[in-house]
Amino acid sequence: MASFRERLHEIVFEADTPAGKAFDVVLLFAIVLSILVVMLESVASINAAYGKEFGIAEWFFTIIFTLEYVIRVAIIKRPLKYIVSFYGLVDLLSVLPTYIGLFVSGAESLLILRSLRLLRVFRVMKLTRYLSEANVLGKALVSSRRKIMVFLLAVVMVTIIMGTLMFMIEGGVPDSGFTSIPRSIYWAIVTLTTVGYGDISPITTVGQIVASIIMILGYAIIAVPTGIVTAELAKPPVIANTQNCSYCGEEDHLDNAKYCHSCGEGFK
Amino acid sequence: MASFRERLHEIVFEADTPAGKAFDVVLLFAIVLSILVVMLESVASINAAYGKEFGIAEWFFTIIFTLEYVIRVAIIKRPLKYIVSFYGLVDLLSVLPTYIGLFVSGAESLLILRSLRLLRVFRVMKLTRYLSEANVLGKALVSSRRKIMVFLLAVVMVTIIMGTLMFMIEGGVPDSGFTSIPRSIYWAIVTLTTVGYGDISPITTVGQIVASIIMILGYAIIAVPTGIVTAELAKPPVIANTQNCSYCGEEDHLDNAKYCHSCGEGFK
Amino acid sequence: MASFRERLHEIVFEADTPAGKAFDVVLLFAIVLSILVVMLESVASINAAYGKEFGIAEWFFTIIFTLEYVIRVAIIKRPLKYIVSFYGLVDLLSVLPTYIGLFVSGAESLLILRSLRLLRVFRVMKLTRYLSEANVLGKALVSSRRKIMVFLLAVVMVTIIMGTLMFMIEGGVPDSGFTSIPRSIYWAIVTLTTVGYGDISPITTVGQIVASIIMILGYAIIAVPTGIVTAELAKPPVIANTQNCSYCGEEDHLDNAKYCHSCGEGFK
Amino acid sequence: MASFRERLHEIVFEADTPAGKAFDVVLLFAIVLSILVVMLESVASINAAYGKEFGIAEWFFTIIFTLEYVIRVAIIKRPLKYIVSFYGLVDLLSVLPTYIGLFVSGAESLLILRSLRLLRVFRVMKLTRYLSEANVLGKALVSSRRKIMVFLLAVVMVTIIMGTLMFMIEGGVPDSGFTSIPRSIYWAIVTLTTVGYGDISPITTVGQIVASIIMILGYAIIAVPTGIVTAELAKPPVIANTQNCSYCGEEDHLDNAKYCHSCGEGFK
Repeated sequence: MASFRERLHEIVFEADTPAGKAFDVVLLFAIVLSILVVMLESVASINAAYGKEFGIAEWFFTIIFTLEYVIRVAIIKRPLKYIVSFYGLVDLLSVLPTYIGLFVSGAESLLILRSLRLLRVFRVMKLTRYLSEANVLGKALVSSRRKIMVFLLAVVMVTIIMGTLMFMIEGGVPDSGFTSIPRSIYWAIVTLTTVGYGDISPITTVGQIVASIIMILGYAIIAVPTGIVTAELAKPPVIANTQNCSYCGEEDHLDNAKYCHSCGEGFK
Repeated sequence: MASFRERLHEIVFEADTPAGKAFDVVLLFAIVLSILVVMLESVASINAAYGKEFGIAEWFFTIIFTLEYVIRVAIIKRPLKYIVSFYGLVDLLSVLPTYIGLFVSGAESLLILRSLRLLRVFRVMKLTRYLSEANVLGKALVSSRRKIMVFLLAVVMVTIIMGTLMFMIEGGVPDSGFTSIPRSIYWAIVTLTTVGYGDISPITTVGQIVASIIMILGYAIIAVPTGIVTAELAKPPVIANTQNCSYCGEEDHLDNAKYCHSCGEGFK
Repeated sequence: MASFRERLHEIVFEADTPAGKAFDVVLLFAIVLSILVVMLESVASINAAYGKEFGIAEWFFTIIFTLEYVIRVAIIKRPLKYIVSFYGLVDLLSVLPTYIGLFVSGAESLLILRSLRLLRVFRVMKLTRYLSEANVLGKALVSSRRKIMVFLLAVVMVTIIMGTLMFMIEGGVPDSGFTSIPRSIYWAIVTLTTVGYGDISPITTVGQIVASIIMILGYAIIAVPTGIVTAELAKPPVIANTQNCSYCGEEDHLDNAKYCHSCGEGFK
Repeated sequence: MASFRERLHEIVFEADTPAGKAFDVVLLFAIVLSILVVMLESVASINAAYGKEFGIAEWFFTIIFTLEYVIRVAIIKRPLKYIVSFYGLVDLLSVLPTYIGLFVSGAESLLILRSLRLLRVFRVMKLTRYLSEANVLGKALVSSRRKIMVFLLAVVMVTIIMGTLMFMIEGGVPDSGFTSIPRSIYWAIVTLTTVGYGDISPITTVGQIVASIIMILGYAIIAVPTGIVTAELAKPPVIANTQNCSYCGEEDHLDNAKYCHSCGEGFK
């Protein structure tokens, strides 16, 4: 029979039993509600009407999440490991801003960090399968990190040079948005990523020609990250042949190998 | 010899016979025309001139489509299965709004749901081949649904946090568009998806630097769905031929193979 | 020894001999120049200053190209085949507008169709290799045409329904750009393709929420064409085994086949 | 024991020894600082306050980089080869503008070319691995250069023809941004690349319909460069081992194979 502490551990930390799942679902609703409160509080007209209610709700959720945090620290066997873990830090960050807000005004907006707690949704739904999908995406990003860094450095240099070029062309023109090199680099980034706000755009003919070249060539450049991620995701899984040579221990044999390619030992 | 009901079934539900195909083509034209009427009716200047004619046309198409729906229900063997099927519901939804419009004004716009009936175009043209293509696309989307959901949750969290960050940076600046957290999140979504309307855009230097980082990093994030779909579509089709040679045991035969390509043994 | 007509044919139609190549290079320069004239003529300030010179240049190029066209028709063996070929039609279309312009004003802008003649650039440079690259791209587009058509129909239906939805939400709001269903559909296309001009953008909170959903979901939808084209381009080339069965003539044998999979005949 | 010249060579040209690495790190900081100075100098308000300090900093960095360049030329064995190499030219270009600025005002902006020196960052970090990643990206771009050129020519022709078409449709309309063919072509490029500034956008219904078609079809066209790069990156590396077993003739051995995996015969 489970002790009270073990029972509490099951409810708070696990999601396989009905009680544990119910706890996580209630928690998710509380998180979503508290995020909505922070959002609506920032809308001036709504805050004017319901400011007091929002303040109460904020403290209500903060006290609930603080209690939950204290319980988690109290019942887990190795509290320090939880506290410095990713989930532990997120749980702490989702209550701290309210307390800080007592001394520093404006800190309440940091409560939005609570949205990171939404990651718990994977625990409530078919946990492991979704996490493994996240793993696949994460691994694809990690194993192409060097290609991505090379690409990012290339983008930074292209935008610096192109931005300066446009500043030299359009800088002196009246009503031009290219008033300084940093602003022109900002424009180059907005253009290269095809976001294109239009708050700054070339007005001289030469500027429009250079901008057209940046857009077309830039499109080819920007196709690269898609290519990197796709190629990584499309990679065939590593050949699963787990045969080790019994003589020399060599691995990575072809699937149809009958003899070790390293020492010539025959496979049984 | 076919009974009248069987003949009607052939015309209304099938597209292989000349009569059945002609029925579907006429129906498609009626659908396109009725969609055009709904669209043009919404243009104030055109509606002022032809409002009466549009009203007549709307009722004309509604009555035709109602008749067609009644006939379909009447002649099919299992009416209930048709009524609750996707096509049955679409057929119903494409006439209901006119009747509802008698009591609730504004409901006529819902007639646009008729455009879903355009799916019938696949029946008129080389039916099966196009549907199988749609199947390939659909399967690719379905089998990557978990990756897509993980990705969407990541996007939601990134936009919430980035939007709030921008609200904290630009919120207090006069003439800034970042007047509340929800509006800032809307900006973050517009930016991350590279739509970039420009109705809201950062004006402070710090805001533009943060926005640049969001755009470049965001571009890497947004490359992910393309990668997911592409990798899924690029997957080699599973070889469906499971034939083993009964003589030498060789596998991987072509689908239309009648003899083993390795030993020449004939297949039954 | 080549007759005059054969020599002319070599110069005008081929690009392998020095004379033929020189002819094509001069022709390309003339085409580029004549396109520039048409473009600059459309700029009001430049046309005011050089209108007369542009008119002369236009007739100069038209007469040269007409002469070239007449020569081509005269010296080729099967003139009709050339006239109805793609290049023949383009060559004709690149002179007709000037003559039509004598009777119908404004037709001169059609001279821009001359830009299609730039395709000749492939003949001057390493001809065959570039054309085969164009072939690869063309084939990838052709062989995925059904997937693309299914996708386009899906996009049309999504934009019609989403545009109407936005019209119902934002239509009645003052200062809203969603003044009619066709305009709202135009907005939906601008948004789905991530172009995002910003000439129309949602201003109500509900409208911005729906627009956000369209953008994020739309991004997943729009990832599809990239996926289709990439998957097509990434397809391994068809196995090059050119073995034909000497008994039954069957093709497409596996690379390591020792017996015909269709009739069982042994390969030598 | 290393001579003074050899020691200097090690520090200036290599990054493996502590001294060489320290030199490169200091150099990188100097490059980043000098780029920041050039950028901030272009901001009118900041330049008004710190113009004198910026001038001093600019000359300080220029003299340092000039000294470095002179040392590099002096100690390397084949100075001419370094001077005409890519890095040599970049090193020269990063000091020249300041000297030119003595005679031609405005040339200082060219100092931004110093940002190309940031490429040295790869030498400081795990050198070879990153360079090989850059190589993979570079090779993918080089080996698809013909596909990309075919694609660019197609884009140029599409934008010329579409731009002219829109000029013919919207050109005469008051308040339209399509005032000339070049400007309309600029619009077509902005639209096709999905940048979409919104500084020019169609206002007539016909113009919006044509623009919609350009956007949707254009999206399919623009999917091509992504496809090209991805397909190139996703290509399996060519198996470099051309070894055939001298006993059984089996091919496709792993690169490091010493014995045939099929019959066990040893390779010489």
